[in-house]
Parts: sequence; structure tokens; C-alpha cells
Amino acid sequence: MKALRYHGPFSVSVDDVPDPSIEHPTDAIVRITTTNICGSDLHMYEGRTGVEENTILGHENMGIVEAVGDGVDRVEVGDRVSLPFNIACGSCANCVKGLTGFCLRANPDGAGAAYGYASMGPYAGGQAEYLRVPWADFNALVLPAGTEHENDYTLLSDVFPTGWHGVELAKLQPGETIVISGAGPVGLMAAHSAVLMGASQVLVIDHQPDRLALAERFGSVAVNRATGDVVERVTELTGGGADRGVDAVGYQAHDPDGTERPESVLNELVAMVKPTGGIGVVGVYVPEDPGASGELARQGKLAFDYGTFFFKGQSMGTGQANVKKYNERLRDLITAGRAEPGIIVSHELPLAEAASGYERFDKREDGWTKVLLHPAA
Amino acid sequence: MKALRYHGPFSVSVDDVPDPSIEHPTDAIVRITTTNICGSDLHMYEGRTGVEENTILGHENMGIVEAVGDGVDRVEVGDRVSLPFNIACGSCANCVKGLTGFCLRANPDGAGAAYGYASMGPYAGGQAEYLRVPWADFNALVLPAGTEHENDYTLLSDVFPTGWHGVELAKLQPGETIVISGAGPVGLMAAHSAVLMGASQVLVIDHQPDRLALAERFGSVAVNRATGDVVERVTELTGGGADRGVDAVGYQAHDPDGTERPESVLNELVAMVKPTGGIGVVGVYVPEDPGASGELARQGKLAFDYGTFFFKGQSMGTGQANVKKYNERLRDLITAGRAEPGIIVSHELPLAEAASGYERFDKREDGWTKVLLHPAA
Amino acid sequence: MKALRYHGPFSVSVDDVPDPSIEHPTDAIVRITTTNICGSDLHMYEGRTGVEENTILGHENMGIVEAVGDGVDRVEVGDRVSLPFNIACGSCANCVKGLTGFCLRANPDGAGAAYGYASMGPYAGGQAEYLRVPWADFNALVLPAGTEHENDYTLLSDVFPTGWHGVELAKLQPGETIVISGAGPVGLMAAHSAVLMGASQVLVIDHQPDRLALAERFGSVAVNRATGDVVERVTELTGGGADRGVDAVGYQAHDPDGTERPESVLNELVAMVKPTGGIGVVGVYVPEDPGASGELARQGKLAFDYGTFFFKGQSMGTGQANVKKYNERLRDLITAGRAEPGIIVSHELPLAEAASGYERFDKREDGWTKVLLHPAA
Amino acid sequence: MKALRYHGPFSVSVDDVPDPSIEHPTDAIVRITTTNICGSDLHMYEGRTGVEENTILGHENMGIVEAVGDGVDRVEVGDRVSLPFNIACGSCANCVKGLTGFCLRANPDGAGAAYGYASMGPYAGGQAEYLRVPWADFNALVLPAGTEHENDYTLLSDVFPTGWHGVELAKLQPGETIVISGAGPVGLMAAHSAVLMGASQVLVIDHQPDRLALAERFGSVAVNRATGDVVERVTELTGGGADRGVDAVGYQAHDPDGTERPESVLNELVAMVKPTGGIGVVGVYVPEDPGASGELARQGKLAFDYGTFFFKGQSMGTGQANVKKYNERLRDLITAGRAEPGIIVSHELPLAEAASGYERFDKREDGWTKVLLHPAA
Repeated sequence: MKALRYHGPFSVSVDDVPDPSIEHPTDAIVRITTTNICGSDLHMYEGRTGVEENTILGHENMGIVEAVGDGVDRVEVGDRVSLPFNIACGSCANCVKGLTGFCLRANPDGAGAAYGYASMGPYAGGQAEYLRVPWADFNALVLPAGTEHENDYTLLSDVFPTGWHGVELAKLQPGETIVISGAGPVGLMAAHSAVLMGASQVLVIDHQPDRLALAERFGSVAVNRATGDVVERVTELTGGGADRGVDAVGYQAHDPDGTERPESVLNELVAMVKPTGGIGVVGVYVPEDPGASGELARQGKLAFDYGTFFFKGQSMGTGQANVKKYNERLRDLITAGRAEPGIIVSHELPLAEAASGYERFDKREDGWTKVLLHPAA
Repeated sequence: MKALRYHGPFSVSVDDVPDPSIEHPTDAIVRITTTNICGSDLHMYEGRTGVEENTILGHENMGIVEAVGDGVDRVEVGDRVSLPFNIACGSCANCVKGLTGFCLRANPDGAGAAYGYASMGPYAGGQAEYLRVPWADFNALVLPAGTEHENDYTLLSDVFPTGWHGVELAKLQPGETIVISGAGPVGLMAAHSAVLMGASQVLVIDHQPDRLALAERFGSVAVNRATGDVVERVTELTGGGADRGVDAVGYQAHDPDGTERPESVLNELVAMVKPTGGIGVVGVYVPEDPGASGELARQGKLAFDYGTFFFKGQSMGTGQANVKKYNERLRDLITAGRAEPGIIVSHELPLAEAASGYERFDKREDGWTKVLLHPAA
Repeated sequence: MKALRYHGPFSVSVDDVPDPSIEHPTDAIVRITTTNICGSDLHMYEGRTGVEENTILGHENMGIVEAVGDGVDRVEVGDRVSLPFNIACGSCANCVKGLTGFCLRANPDGAGAAYGYASMGPYAGGQAEYLRVPWADFNALVLPAGTEHENDYTLLSDVFPTGWHGVELAKLQPGETIVISGAGPVGLMAAHSAVLMGASQVLVIDHQPDRLALAERFGSVAVNRATGDVVERVTELTGGGADRGVDAVGYQAHDPDGTERPESVLNELVAMVKPTGGIGVVGVYVPEDPGASGELARQGKLAFDYGTFFFKGQSMGTGQANVKKYNERLRDLITAGRAEPGIIVSHELPLAEAASGYERFDKREDGWTKVLLHPAA
Repeated sequence: MKALRYHGPFSVSVDDVPDPSIEHPTDAIVRITTTNICGSDLHMYEGRTGVEENTILGHENMGIVEAVGDGVDRVEVGDRVSLPFNIACGSCANCVKGLTGFCLRANPDGAGAAYGYASMGPYAGGQAEYLRVPWADFNALVLPAGTEHENDYTLLSDVFPTGWHGVELAKLQPGETIVISGAGPVGLMAAHSAVLMGASQVLVIDHQPDRLALAERFGSVAVNRATGDVVERVTELTGGGADRGVDAVGYQAHDPDGTERPESVLNELVAMVKPTGGIGVVGVYVPEDPGASGELARQGKLAFDYGTFFFKGQSMGTGQANVKKYNERLRDLITAGRAEPGIIVSHELPLAEAASGYERFDKREDGWTKVLLHPAA
């Protein structure tokens, strides 16, 4: 089959590789109809991770079940399914609590596994024609048959649940205000989620006008970092501070001049969120970052404004989304026409053009917000 | 009346001062029967805060209602009451949510007020014969009449609820394991709380054998910092990491040689707590610390191991306890004989000896764990 | 002043009565701008309660603060306020937990007090020019100054929070389905609430087309009881049963021919809601109903389909809304333009026409959904 | 192998039957070391259910894994395991939410399956030498190796989690009071659970002195139904009503003279629990009861004191325990020595004596509280 593989920094190509097969009775093989390039794929693309050469990338996958192992009895051949980016066994101590992003068995190297991802276990990704899905009964979310809402449902594998998770970690209650830092796909999904959950006011901070315009389409108020102090404006717009905050940026936060300041988004949130407020962090931070410019950052540490955080009695939740905790209900919101995450999709490419898609998305060319690949196109 | 006043670093004395009086219809005057010296009183005593000279100290107060204003209709003269250290109005947006530690009206300088405390509003403390209690109907917890359980009930004003709050912020579920850093009064109360809430295993870290012995009396396992690496031992004892952690130390964490390393306890907890685990922080951190040795610490910042915290998907809750959220139920546990927080009381002094009590407690003389003052004694 | 008083079954009139005055330092006097007739006022109007003659009715009140007692320090003269129908002391064991509908001190006869209501304490109602408000700092919700959104904010005193409470009692999660029985003001507010909280599908059952049309305006699906079996249709529309259900009818449920069958709505909900689903009950049931036709009903008992309820593992929450738990956040949703409860208002009358309003509303004349009285008009 | 089979009312015997085998790749075979007779087994024994003749009974099972299918990769041969009485697939919409008692796939006849139980699917029970366990990776809880705590761990399959579930459904908070109706195994486990969770006072109602004595061993207060009005005494002991209540009796509640009054325990709880209190129901009620004496009861309906329930604003949770939600944490409490549920075990028999065990347990001979069977003994 054809698959997009990583060959080194800034080098990916669509290659011929062997088809995947059922390796265990609980496996399924899925024919991919849509697979997305994620912002975190770019970390690997840029060579900032230890991902192995020849790895097939792609953890945002959906498609049609092509084959199932003897131990699979819920999912059936022909089912249209969305696959959470986290691969989870369904029976370890974390999975049974719903903490599928921290499965204790799927990844021999630690808690949490994913398709085609550095340090997340020995699994091929889905930017390919076919994908092997372990523990398929547990992992596959069955979608309504057909092709409707494809560009919405494809966001169920990662960014929609991840944005939603950020808002849950911030403990938003209906009627409250929330500020979201970052209007990339995850931040936009957090904004969409917060409106769906009944926030009275959703503020989204970014410096890119095209992304801020999308935030407004979801019913948020855009706060352009390029036009003034964001802490001041958010404090003013919310009458003294937002009830909740979401970090959808992560450790690559930087000054306008490009200097990385990995602590800057978190410290801003501490300043903008009210005493007793909650902060949800879904932008990625890493335990060590050898390529970082500062010594603290190289150790994965931040100069965090802890005294203020404590003095304000704030709380913080972090980490990868447990996609399964949300994807069924988000699917139903899409099916009912209440959620339309697909608004953020900017480009759809055949798999053959994936390498060029990586290159242009990585340069953050204007308007390149979210890129889908269709292997069969 | 007699009252203990602050006159400058390491200088306090019991002075004659005017009696307090009803200043507002919702006030009450309480005759103090027991008032405790808190570890945080020592921050003021040592001159590390901006507390004004001549301030009467004391935020851990209980006694008998001596007089009430015309607007007081729940609390009655003669009632035996415990007074939460947080002074709360009972009707602002935070108080009605139970966030009485962050009352928006009691302190003109910010969220949250207290008796006799730096930056916490213009209120006299209770290390005195009498105390004015604002919004008395809301603030006073009525206790069973008499004198029984005095040394247990007196801990309801601060350290018992504060320790309990730490465990709640860590989100302990019955049957889980928890590690508590620090066996001072707050850490010991956290240990007592965790056992009462059904933890399967409670580990308490400290380097002082007398305090560790108290931790064991509450059913905890003592982990002596003086005898080896604590992260290693906690990881081993819990079979891979504790489910939950509590920081009962705060920013004055230091190396064995006395070097302050304000981030050390937090970073240890991040290392000792499992992926997806919760951390509750009730040890105090401050937004700025002009007297600190390092530049980061002076700004109230910490070199926090954020990358690991995020990667493990941990959560953290912080801040002063909202005493009223817990004190009624903790009172009932004491009354029923199920809780015995008074075990930690090491010294009881008449008010006249308060100055000497401060001096010896501040030196952390051996066995000085918790000091009570009895103005009438 | 002028006030609407009850004189006996089907007899109310607007009379001259003494103005209310500050009786306690924590009181305020509010000049009423809008006060609504509630469906439960009709129970009194019809003589089915023990309400005393000459009682001023009206528990859904808003207006401008005219005077405050010496003990009031949050609310100020001139503030525009909404008054929760529950009168709460703010400091008893229930109030401090947010259970203001079950205040232990305001009503000498039991838990929970209200303005102008049978068995709910000795308080005059607000269908009058002025109203005395006890514990004003705790009870009054301050609204944005001016007259904007008057018809929305006036619903904050009862039916909007009551409808919201029903959905909370049913434990709706975003993305789930919910069925609401009854499209009176409370049922309609429950429907509005469920959409705001992110339900994927909201079904509303009634037999009156005008009310069902309002349900559709809030984004619900109307299920007309007049055109077929509702259990069957709801089961079909939800693919096997709704996740959640709300009873917004209460004990006066009846067959199409008028025979009261007080258990019918509850038993339908048990049948229509999925196993493990939650049911919220905000329609009123009474401990005894001397005028009822059946022996069970006279004792306040129902032939409840308990075996099925248990077998399906359902849960049920009941009781009066604790208005203060929700009204601040609902106010903010109105202010932000996200909630528009005022859509249900069908009639606005000057106080002078209140008696005629009662008569026509009681007959449920076509289109009489919600009636507001404006004393100053 | 040997197995206890049902042959008709009051007729069971230990018979030779074929050994079970791996039928599906996700199955395991467990060699039973301990299997308990449950009170609900007696419903079948007495002929009050539609259980099929020749069914092997027994849903409270533990043992050693003897064989696993190809699709099993967590549980290993030789593991000592406890098997929740609910058989759950682990991947349906309910299982992924933790609602394993209402699995949508394991039982073709409805939500929820069990071993050897009427209407709960086509599964053999475990009162036998061997048991087939479907979806073994999901269903089997691994225990510490060896034989220690056997009589405690064996209660993890049903009654300990079921008692715990009752207390959770009642929403007990630490420090609150709770009344438990019924001191059979489930009621006793509820009492043990409530103490472990930090209740300030646990009251247990029954009329059998031996069972009440066990309640006291768990730290509860015994309320003997034989010696006076229980509502009155509980109200007095709790100072006005318990915060929480648990029904551990179910539909076979009866008057002292033996007349079944299935609504009596529930209505008592409504009377004894405070306004806004919660009630958890784990005693079994059935959708229809053809053998009942009254017409309502035959239809599975109760004359429920609904008006009072609503007026007091109480809530109620019901249904089978989702054992997996609790059993891991309860196992850890046993292992740590904090929980000792095995105190209730009164008899241990070899499997060969099971028929006599049924007969004597069914007659409720004095002291027969909980009977264990050991197939290998």
C-alpha cells in the first residue's frame, strides 16, 4: 500500500510499504478514508523528536473496517469508524477509569500510546491506505454509515476531543467566562466546545487574523495579540478576569520576535484568570527539550509564576485528552447538527500530495489551518 | 484587655489595649477561650511580611459569644464557637459558591481576609481576651456547649480544615494511596484527613522524628527524609507512584544544609505521583519574596518541572482552605469521637506567656509542634 | 400601597394596604418593577391550599432597592435586583451548602421559605408596589442598571432557574438526549436550559400546540401527546430511550378526559428514559392532597413503577430549585445575549388588572403562557 | 466436573457436568477456589424466578486462571482473580462509562448480565469446580498471589461493592450521618463502607440480634426494629434525621407478622432522611412479581410516599452495583488491612455440602449470615 513515511528532518515521502495484517485476535484493519496532519506531526517533521526513520506518521484517522480478528465481536467489517489517537487496551487500571490517554499496557515505554508517534509505542500511523487497529472493539467509535459529515467526524480522533478536554480541565460551568490562548486547531475546538457547553463569553487570543476570524465564526470574541497587551484586554472584557483559561499553545510559545518563552502563555493565564479559577492545559509541554535555548527549558522546566498561582487559589489540569471519554457524545452533537468542527478544515489533499502538504503546513502558509488527507482520492 | 501585638522582627508582647466593640449590626464579640499560634504567624514574627506594627496577631480562634449586633439572629450570646481564619461576608459571588477563602468584600486589598494577618484586611487577631467577629452569623460555627474536646475543636479554625483541603485538592478517592510532604501541623492534619477519607495507604515525609511519630499515630507510614532518597522510597512503597500528593511545606522548602529551594517539594511530588494523579498544595507560596536568595524566587517564580507534570497528565489544586466548606462536618467527626486532631497539640500556655511561646516555637525547639494560648488561664 | 391579595377560592383583588418597612437591620425594601404570576399561584387561587385570607401573593419579583437596613452592606439603594422566590438566611447548615430552597431558619414551619406562599412562612408577596426582603445582602441578585432585558431577567426569580434545576437533577451531560414532560413555563425553561448546556437532542411533550411551538423556538423537538403514544415516539426518536428526563408537570397530571393520574408522568419517564438514566422532578408533588379523588393520592402517595425504576438502575432528583445556585450564571447568559427566556412571556399587565389576569390565566385561555405584572405601569 | 444445579423450587444438587471450555478468543477458564451463596440465589431457590432447570448457580466467584483464549493478553494462567458478578463486554456505550452492571452486549435480553442468574443471560454459574469467564481481560480482577485474605477477597465479587454502591448512591460525604435499613450481608457491607468513607455516625436497622451485633463490630450503631419505632429512634439519634439512607432490604420487606409490604422500607427512609438528603437503593425490586399478594405489587408498583419525597427535595439512586467501579480500590483496602469484610462470613462448606447449605441458609437459621463454598475442599 501507499503510506507517508518520515525519513529525517523535513523529509517525508509517500512510499510503497507492505499492507498491515491482523496480528492479534483483537485487531482490526481499517481502510483509511480521511487522515489529518496534526500540529504535533510537525514536531516530528522538524526533527525535534526521536521518532525513528521510516515510521509511517498519522494519528488522526478514520475509515471503513476491512477485516477483524477472531476476538472482535462488536465492530464489524464495513463499519465506518473514527479511531482515537490514543491506543488503549481497555482493561488496565487506567483504561477502566476512562484514562485511555494513559493506558498502562499499550506502550512498553510508559503510560499512553498513539499511532505513528515518537515515544508512544511501536505502532504505524494512518497516513496510509490501511491501518492496523489494536483492541479494535475498545478503540473504534462506530459512526453513521455513509459519507456525510466526513470533515466533522474526522476531527473526533484528536483535535475536537482535545479542545473539549482543555475546557473540561478548566472546569467550565455554564454561564462562566473563559479565555483560550491560541487559535490553532486545538484552540478553535476549545472555543467551539466552550460555546456548546454554555459559556457566557469565550475569548480567543492569537496573532493571526485568519485564525481569529474562525474563532469568531464559533461565537468567540477575538483578542489579537498583535494589537496590544492581552492580559489587560482580557481583564477588562471579563470585568476583572476570566473564570477559566485554556492553554492551547504549549512549550513553543514565543515572543513576537520569535524568541521562545515557553512559560509565557501559562504565566499570562495565571494573570488573566480570576482567583479560584481553573486552567486547562492541552498545548504540549515536554519533560526535556534538548534543542531549547535556555537551560531551564532544556530540562523541561519553566519559570512558572507559582506564587501568584497559589495566592489566587487557582487549579490546573493537564495532559493528553482521553479521547474515548468524549468522542461518542461529540459524534452525537455532530450528527444532530449542533456541532460543526469541520469549519476549521482549510485543505483536503490526496495522500499522494502529503509531502507537499507537510511542507506548506509547516511554514504556516496563510490560511493553512487544518489539512486532511484522503488516501482514496 | 490583654492582647499579643507585633512590634517588629522577633518582637511581640502582651499589651493592654482597648476592648473591641460592636461596630456594625452584623458583628459579634467573642471572649477567646483558646487561640493557637500558627506556622504562618512565624512568617510575620520573623519580619518577612509587611504586617503593620502593633497589629494583634492570631487567626486560629475559638471562644464564647459575649455580645452580638442587632443584625445577628443565628448566633446567640453564650454560644461556644469556632471562628474560621478566613473572614467572609457570606454574600459575594465567591462566598455564595463556598469559596470563603476568597471573599471579594472583606478585604479592600484583594480576595480573601483573615484576622490579624499581613495583607488580609484591617482586622485585629484573636491572641487576646476578646475578638470582634464581622458577619458573625455567617462566620461563627456553633460547637457543643461545655469545654469538652477543646483541644480538638480549636483546630477547626485552620489546620484541620487546611489539611483536609489539601487532600480534597488532590482528589483522593477511598482506597487510593497518598503521599504528604511535611509533617508540621498541616501535614499531620492532611494525614489524619486522608485516613478518615479511606485512603489505603498514607505516606508522610519529614526529617523530624517527633513529627513522624505523630504521623504514625494517625495511621500513616513515616518516610524520613534524613535516611535516604524520598522519591525512590515512595515510588517503591506505592508500587510505582502514589495516586495523590499533598504539599504541606510551601516556599520555605530547603535542602538539609538550609539552602532554600522553593521548588523542591513540588518537583518531588511531580516525580512521586503517578501519571494522571492529583496534587494538592496548601503549603504557602507567595507572589513575591524580596528576601529570597535567588532572582526567580524574589519574583515569586519557581523552576517548576512543568514538562513532566504535563507529560504525566497530572492536576493541581492550590490555595487557602475555604474553612467553612469543611468545618461543620469535621466538628461532627470530633464530636462523634472519630477524629482526634488534638493529638498534635504539644503545648498550652496562658496568654501572658505568649511571647516566650513565639520565641521557642520559632526556634522549632524539639517537640514544639502546636502551641495553644488560653487567655483566661 | 396597592397589592394583590387573596380573599378565598377564585377571589383576589388589588387593595390598599400599608407600605412595608425595614423590620430588621438586614432587611431591604424593593420597589417592584415586574412580578409574575406563577402556575403555583393558581393552586392558591383555586383554593387547593391552606393559604390565609388577605395574603399578598407573588413570589417572582424584581425591582429597584428603595431602602436598606443598617446591617445591609452589599446591596445599595438604587440597585436593580432580582429576588429568588426562596427566602434564605444565608447562614444555616443548608444555606451554606447552597441548599437555599431548604433554609432551616426562614420558615418556622419547616425547611424552605418563600414570598406570599402557603406554608412557606409569614412573608408578604410581591404582587404589589413594594416588598420587604429579609437578609437582603444574601437574597438580592444585582442586575445591570437600566431597563434592558426586563422580561428575561424577571424569569430569574423562579422559572428559569427551576427549569435549569430540573435538567441538573437529571444530570445531563453535553451531547446527551433529554425528554421533558410538560411545556408550561418550567418545561420550556428546562428545554432552553438543556440546549444551552449542550444536549444533542431535546424532546418536549405536551398537548397544547401553542406551547409546543415555543418549545421548538428554543431548539427542541415537539412531541404532541394528542397525536399518539408518547413513550413509543420518544423511544423511537432517541433510538431506544432518552439519556435523561424531566418532569415539569407534577401531581396534577391527568388523562385527556381530565381524570387526575398523578403517577402517570413519572411512570412514563421511567419507561422513556434509558437504563442508568437520570430523572429530574421539578413539577410539584404534595405530601397530602385532601381534595384528590383516589385514596393513595389523598395520602400524597403514588402507584410508582418502582420495580422498573430499580431494574433500570435509574436515579432521580427532586424538589424546589435552589435559585441562588444558578441565577448569577443565568443572568450572565442573558446579559451576553446567549439566553432569551423572555420568549415565553405572553402577557404584560398593569398591577390594577391583576385580578383579571389571574382569572384568564387560570382558565388557561389560549396563548396565556406567562403573565407579568408591572406595578408602575 | 462437579457443579451445583437448580432443579426446581427448593431443589438443588451437586451434579457431574461437562467441564467448561474456551469458546471465544477473549474467554478464560477459572478454577474456583471460593464461591458464595448470595441472598438473591435464594429467590431462585424458592422458585420465585423464571430461572431454567439445570442451571448452574453462583455469581460470587473467585479462583485461579486455568486457561485463556488467544485474545487474552492481560490476565495470565495462574493469576488469582476475583470475578465481578456482572459480566461486561468492556466496549459498549455503558461499559466505557463504567456502567458495567448495564452492559448492552452481554445479555441478549436486556442491559446487564451475570453468571448463573435468572434473566441475566446464558451464562453458567460458578458454584462449580470451573467457570468460563467471557471478556476475561476486562472482567477479571487480579489479586495478590497466595491464599491470604481469601474470605475478604471473595466478597469483592458482589456484596462488598454492592454495599459500597448503596452508600455512593446515597452520596455520603465524610462527616455526615447515614442510616442503613437491613443488616444482611449487603447492609453490613454498606455499614463497613460508610465507616471507611468517613461517616460520623452509621445506624443500622434490623430485627435480628446476631446481625446487629455484626453491624456494631463495623463501628455502627444498632437499631433493633423489634424494640420500638425505628423512624422515631433514628430521628432522635441523628438530631432530626439522617443525612443519607440506604435500602439494603428490597421488595421482600415485610411486617413483623410476615405480611409483605414492599414499600415499607422505602417510605421509612423517606421519613428518616433529612430534607435534601440522598437515598441509595441496592435491595432488589422487580418489574413484576406475579406471586405477590397485592395487585400493585404484582405489577411491580409501590405505594410510594412520593409527595413527601419531593417536598423534602430528596434524591435517590438505584440499581445493581457496577462492581468494576469499586473492586480495585476495595481490594487495596483489604490488602492494606484497612477493610475486613470477611467478618460477616459465618459458614464455609465444601461444594459437596452446597445443597444442605442452601436449605439452612434459606431458613435463615440463627447465625447463618454468609455462606462460602470451597469446591476444592
